[in-house]
Amino acid sequence: MRLRKIKNADQIIKESDKVVSDPFSYRGKWQDAFSNNQEIHLEIGMGKGNFIIESAIKNPSINYIGLERESTIVVKALNKLEEKEIPNLIFIHADADNLQAIFSEAEIAVIYLNFSDPWPKNKHIKRRLTYDYKLKIYYDLLIDDGKIYMKTDNRKFFQYSLINFTYNRYKIVDLSLNLHQDYNNIITTEYEDRFRKLGKAIYYIEVEKWKE
Amino acid sequence: MRLRKIKNADQIIKESDKVVSDPFSYRGKWQDAFSNNQEIHLEIGMGKGNFIIESAIKNPSINYIGLERESTIVVKALNKLEEKEIPNLIFIHADADNLQAIFSEAEIAVIYLNFSDPWPKNKHIKRRLTYDYKLKIYYDLLIDDGKIYMKTDNRKFFQYSLINFTYNRYKIVDLSLNLHQDYNNIITTEYEDRFRKLGKAIYYIEVEKWKE
Repeated sequence: MRLRKIKNADQIIKESDKVVSDPFSYRGKWQDAFSNNQEIHLEIGMGKGNFIIESAIKNPSINYIGLERESTIVVKALNKLEEKEIPNLIFIHADADNLQAIFSEAEIAVIYLNFSDPWPKNKHIKRRLTYDYKLKIYYDLLIDDGKIYMKTDNRKFFQYSLINFTYNRYKIVDLSLNLHQDYNNIITTEYEDRFRKLGKAIYYIEVEKWKE
Repeated sequence: MRLRKIKNADQIIKESDKVVSDPFSYRGKWQDAFSNNQEIHLEIGMGKGNFIIESAIKNPSINYIGLERESTIVVKALNKLEEKEIPNLIFIHADADNLQAIFSEAEIAVIYLNFSDPWPKNKHIKRRLTYDYKLKIYYDLLIDDGKIYMKTDNRKFFQYSLINFTYNRYKIVDLSLNLHQDYNNIITTEYEDRFRKLGKAIYYIEVEKWKE
């Protein structure tokens, strides 16, 4: 997907009170950003925001954080908010490589990886959001019974991720090789809607930190 | 699949020197049955035998045991042998429920579950060959780094099995949601050939006993 760049995206983001201006300053105290002690769910790569906005509206007792590195896409998500008041939703404009600088240990209850870039070439393996090193970082950022929910249409990326989860101290709680056939009332992403229309199966996995 | 019953199947089996007449007597000493100390691979539900016969021919340094409870099907497998001399192959005519009476602990290196009956109804869950209790039995019968290789065309049975393996001290070593797209030179079963012709994806998983 190619997006036309929004010229003044950085300015729009800077002026928005929905996007945290200095995410690093909240490290270890993200609940302060929401002024409550609700658990925090993080979507890494929120894209245009459909999934996280709908999740936040449906579940007001959970705090949602959407992380996205592309400024143009952050603005698309901001536009989607329109005039909606969603106090339990915050956006962060940053790269996922900074996760450990933004969050401290055991600060997140759930991580969503929705249609992340599969980086199919082996030389790009480290960029995959389910690369070993990254799964180790998530492990530390998640609370004790923390979970990761992943959706993708990419078979090989799914296979890779599934094996990698089990090798990195996560246990499989649920899984589907055709999510929309097995479940109803799913909150979808923009990609997901497109793939469903094409009749493509969506792969889904839910994993939990393995208690030691 | 409905098979016409072979009337004198039990007699044919009794007279065959390929089918062990008293499998229980070999418990704990199966290598004696082969007169060597090669590792033993067991297929539970060998069907008409295509997979295990071809495996045995290709890998003479491994001992293969094919277990099948339907006498008519055992005879079909015997017919497939024709005049071939395959010293590293033995058939057992018995129900998988007797596994613990036939094999002792750490006697098997590899178990194959090829296109096992998925028993889709919940009330039949205990009959599935990947039901918890059965995975525990396999665990004991397998050697320390023993493995299970499973193939199926049934998505829900695959999903069920995958989760169950990880909950029962097996780790996923490899997995494919489209085996014949990911691998070449696969030894197939009769079912598998039929499904491939229909263009159906074959699900595959390889698991290993989790070292504690």
